Amino acid sequence: MGAVRVLGVDPGLTRCGLGVVDGLPGRRLAVVAVGVATSPPDADIDQRLLRIERSVEEWLEEHAPDTVAIERVFANHQVSTVMGTAQVAGLAMVAAARRRIPVALHTPSEVKAAVTGNGRADKAQVQTMVTRLLRLDERPRPADAADALALAICHLWRPAGAVGAPQRPPSSLTAAQRAWAAAEQAARRRA
Amino acid sequence: MGAVRVLGVDPGLTRCGLGVVDGLPGRRLAVVAVGVATSPPDADIDQRLLRIERSVEEWLEEHAPDTVAIERVFANHQVSTVMGTAQVAGLAMVAAARRRIPVALHTPSEVKAAVTGNGRADKAQVQTMVTRLLRLDERPRPADAADALALAICHLWRPAGAVGAPQRPPSSLTAAQRAWAAAEQAARRRA
Repeated sequence: MGAVRVLGVDPGLTRCGLGVVDGLPGRRLAVVAVGVATSPPDADIDQRLLRIERSVEEWLEEHAPDTVAIERVFANHQVSTVMGTAQVAGLAMVAAARRRIPVALHTPSEVKAAVTGNGRADKAQVQTMVTRLLRLDERPRPADAADALALAICHLWRPAGAVGAPQRPPSSLTAAQRAWAAAEQAARRRA
Repeated sequence: MGAVRVLGVDPGLTRCGLGVVDGLPGRRLAVVAVGVATSPPDADIDQRLLRIERSVEEWLEEHAPDTVAIERVFANHQVSTVMGTAQVAGLAMVAAARRRIPVALHTPSEVKAAVTGNGRADKAQVQTMVTRLLRLDERPRPADAADALALAICHLWRPAGAVGAPQRPPSSLTAAQRAWAAAEQAARRRA
């Protein structure tokens, strides 16, 4: 069985984080690509959405992920940006669905719990763990890019059978969870 | 100058109203097509969005509108459905933008004011006026379809130069506004 490739999408209208990670349960993760799709805030909304959609489609074409993991957007998200964020998430879902690529949605707290062990971790902690888990030389910039990578890691490391579902404490650790626990421990020692 | 054709879109994930109206300022309106795109509530969100997008694209292909008029969705919209509604609105915008068709957003109160003269009119009043203005034999069903037609009428009858902007009381009536005022008066007499 080859590596599983996940495209993480941190939806946003001004900046949409994109990160591709290869992984296999119990093995090391490898970052394939990371970046941000942008749209000019002074453009019309339809043109902004079109621009972000085209970027997402380019990433799907170029990296051919097995799954697209997208942040689940809630109505109580920051009110000034929630409409654009929800619309970008929708576009990413449809761009994947058109290519018959499975879509998974993960909540921010699921993502934080997956990479730091704490569902309420702050942005800096998430960035630190993403940098460490992917063995990067420096933190991915901007933060949206790090969040996209965290989404991909969250999806690769989710408990088997829990696609998109809230994560429950496992009764026994899988190989992937052991790898995560080890990385988390190492991060805490160094912090 | 030929008639202007507008596709109105009342966005929704379970039912998305679609209505095509031909019009020319100061002349009669003509309904071209009206219907509803649906998606099964028990399907995955990406598949539901994909299904609605395909319906919108079929309507764009078949009817080749000059403009797509979409209801502007606000964050304070009904909270249980606002995410799906916003996502469908976004998909409709991008489907139009891909074909270089201009997009206009109108608020619910703009639409109500355009067809009934009252920005706080209820659904029944909007349906009555849509039925009358388009000389239909009966009210369009379901309500989402009537709302889509109302959006198209709102766009055709907006004050010149006020694309997508809040409507202000005109200082003098245009031919279209006279036609509207006449229809509105007739409706009130019969009500």
